[in-house]
Amino acid sequence: MTEASGIREQALRCRDAAQALAQLDSVAKDALLESMARALEDDADAILAANARDLEAARARGTGGAMLDRLTLDPARLAGIARALREVAALPDPVGQVTRRETRPNGIRVERVRVPLGVIAMIYEARPNVTADAAALCIKAGNGVILRGGSEAIHSNTAIAASLQRAIGEAGLDPAVLTLVTDLRRETMLELLQLTDIVDLAIPRGGEGLIRFVAEHARVPVIKHYKGVCHLYVDRAADLELALRLLLDGKASRPGVCNALETLLVHADVAARFLPAAGAALRARRVEIRGDAATRVLLPDAAPASEDDYAAEFLDLVIAVRVVDDLAQAIDHVRRYTSDHTEVIATTDEAAARRFVDSLRSAVVMVNASSRFSDGGELGLGAEIGISTTRLHSYGPMGLEALTVERFVVHGEGQVRHPDLL
Amino acid sequence: MTEASGIREQALRCRDAAQALAQLDSVAKDALLESMARALEDDADAILAANARDLEAARARGTGGAMLDRLTLDPARLAGIARALREVAALPDPVGQVTRRETRPNGIRVERVRVPLGVIAMIYEARPNVTADAAALCIKAGNGVILRGGSEAIHSNTAIAASLQRAIGEAGLDPAVLTLVTDLRRETMLELLQLTDIVDLAIPRGGEGLIRFVAEHARVPVIKHYKGVCHLYVDRAADLELALRLLLDGKASRPGVCNALETLLVHADVAARFLPAAGAALRARRVEIRGDAATRVLLPDAAPASEDDYAAEFLDLVIAVRVVDDLAQAIDHVRRYTSDHTEVIATTDEAAARRFVDSLRSAVVMVNASSRFSDGGELGLGAEIGISTTRLHSYGPMGLEALTVERFVVHGEGQVRHPDLL
Repeated sequence: MTEASGIREQALRCRDAAQALAQLDSVAKDALLESMARALEDDADAILAANARDLEAARARGTGGAMLDRLTLDPARLAGIARALREVAALPDPVGQVTRRETRPNGIRVERVRVPLGVIAMIYEARPNVTADAAALCIKAGNGVILRGGSEAIHSNTAIAASLQRAIGEAGLDPAVLTLVTDLRRETMLELLQLTDIVDLAIPRGGEGLIRFVAEHARVPVIKHYKGVCHLYVDRAADLELALRLLLDGKASRPGVCNALETLLVHADVAARFLPAAGAALRARRVEIRGDAATRVLLPDAAPASEDDYAAEFLDLVIAVRVVDDLAQAIDHVRRYTSDHTEVIATTDEAAARRFVDSLRSAVVMVNASSRFSDGGELGLGAEIGISTTRLHSYGPMGLEALTVERFVVHGEGQVRHPDLL
Repeated sequence: MTEASGIREQALRCRDAAQALAQLDSVAKDALLESMARALEDDADAILAANARDLEAARARGTGGAMLDRLTLDPARLAGIARALREVAALPDPVGQVTRRETRPNGIRVERVRVPLGVIAMIYEARPNVTADAAALCIKAGNGVILRGGSEAIHSNTAIAASLQRAIGEAGLDPAVLTLVTDLRRETMLELLQLTDIVDLAIPRGGEGLIRFVAEHARVPVIKHYKGVCHLYVDRAADLELALRLLLDGKASRPGVCNALETLLVHADVAARFLPAAGAALRARRVEIRGDAATRVLLPDAAPASEDDYAAEFLDLVIAVRVVDDLAQAIDHVRRYTSDHTEVIATTDEAAARRFVDSLRSAVVMVNASSRFSDGGELGLGAEIGISTTRLHSYGPMGLEALTVERFVVHGEGQVRHPDLL
């Protein structure tokens, strides 16, 4: 017999704790976040020691490179995590915001008011900073949070959570408002994802495999994004110097993130002027180019692009390029391969820009701005809990508001619907 | 071998048709809704004849009463359906609304803009009016709609859909933007509910059994409400005459709907003054009372209330009553039995009202107003596509806006995230 996970009981306790949290005002919540930041600073030695154990185990497994880097904490990174908590504290509180007021003809006063979602389950991988970042955003928005991180970071996550929970307890709240799942069995995660009467939302963050697993097995609502196949379309009427800036920033400034460019589409009329310079600039930044026949006429060194290349999120210094006949063909291409994340048009033609924006349904559409701005912080959300590429609840980068929902509060003086029947 | 359903192909065609619809402006969409209303009027004879076939089959199966009434169309009801289409046409169009604008420090201009969800699947039971109502709301918000009604109404639904589709075709759109599923096999509905790459949202409307079936088997997002166990709490500081009005309107004006009252909680300090009069008024309206011990001291005729009675949505002339010691006990009671639909407090004490509102997480909370106002039309949404009792995307009555989502549109002049790297 397998041991019971106790996850349902943990989640119930988190929900009850969240009910008390939801009634704190902004001042109290911000003070709590400040205490949480201070707790991390006070416990820095213990957290770094725990992180050293994770790093040792990772090295013993042969982990290296980017993965090991993501797992690594040091005093500067820990200070950054504490600073991020204070930044969340400084953001406006969405809870209690009245988004609309209306007095109906019968005199009842209807308000839409933001309330917390309830309990949010975060499922993530190796980055221990998510433990603190996600906790801060969920708590600021009045929610309980159940954190299920990866086994690689279990000691770091446990130490960070213990530190934050101490601050929560000292503030007079049940520390279960932040619940770290330490039973990392897959069946326990599955159990968590079935708790439709307790968990209001699951947010998976990590590789496509993890996200597909969560989306496939969850019965609770899931907000997710699988990948970012972001397109830059250089229109006939583009400022080509501007377009080149967007291309280089989008592809080469940080290729491993979801808002990096993966595909470049160039209008045939400007291809001969744009592509040779673009190709040289990309090659100077060691970007591999995979192009269609028309591209390879202009860039003979480019490899041929396959169907798969146009659907790929390379997360690397690789770009797929295609020359298109016109705006319509660019739109068709994007519609076919889009991941609904971010698309960019470079053009000085307002009508073309409008048509591009209106014809595409992606979460973020940019006109003459870099795809790399497709990020909660850059778009003005203050911080980001995740990105949604599904058109429900939230679409695109998600900030604090996405951790709340609007409900109705009505005030009257005894109005009834059928006074005739009384 | 069972016959292939073709539902995936139908859904794909609906999605493509919706893409064209999404680009119509408000004037064109409203003209389309007007044509749809006129088509229903023109085809009245055919629709009523089809309805007669459904009614005949229903009678042959021994269907009667409320069920037969829900299925019945007559010239007046059909005129009402056409009028409802025109009312939807007259509502403001949520699509394209800019809900927020911000210029970031780097000069990029960020807008949040409402866009359609995409394709919405409505799963419903015997009411043929839902076919037209749901289609109108989905289309007004720029969405494709896949309608899967009950077998009892199949002839009526087919005739209504054919009429509406004719109008859609005449407007130059693919009629598949409104797709009626006529293959009513359960496995075909299940297939529809798995189409996560095509269907953006499923909204089940009907009995709790249907809704649980959809919620349990869908892989696409589902917005739903199971039941409405609405509470009225009569506070110590209530205006008792006002409270009685709310009680009678909430319980007796239309007991079969989800925003009717199911439970009455009375503060002990006013129970002796309130309950005898309330009991008499309820009995005069043939409402059966089931009470706790304290209630039955004051209302000796009342039956004893069981645990189940407090959790029940009676949908009938029955009410559960409990005398509570104080506001805190009333809040505990509601928290325990709530269906997250609608709760009401009758009080003149503002602090008590605020505590009631803040302590409860239900979708609608009323102060001194009838629970029967918990309805999209009454709350100012213009029309209602459904009610959500889950705190994601939409909470409470859902109108046109709930059929859209906000995305990001950004305009710049070539801004990049890492100018230093160029």
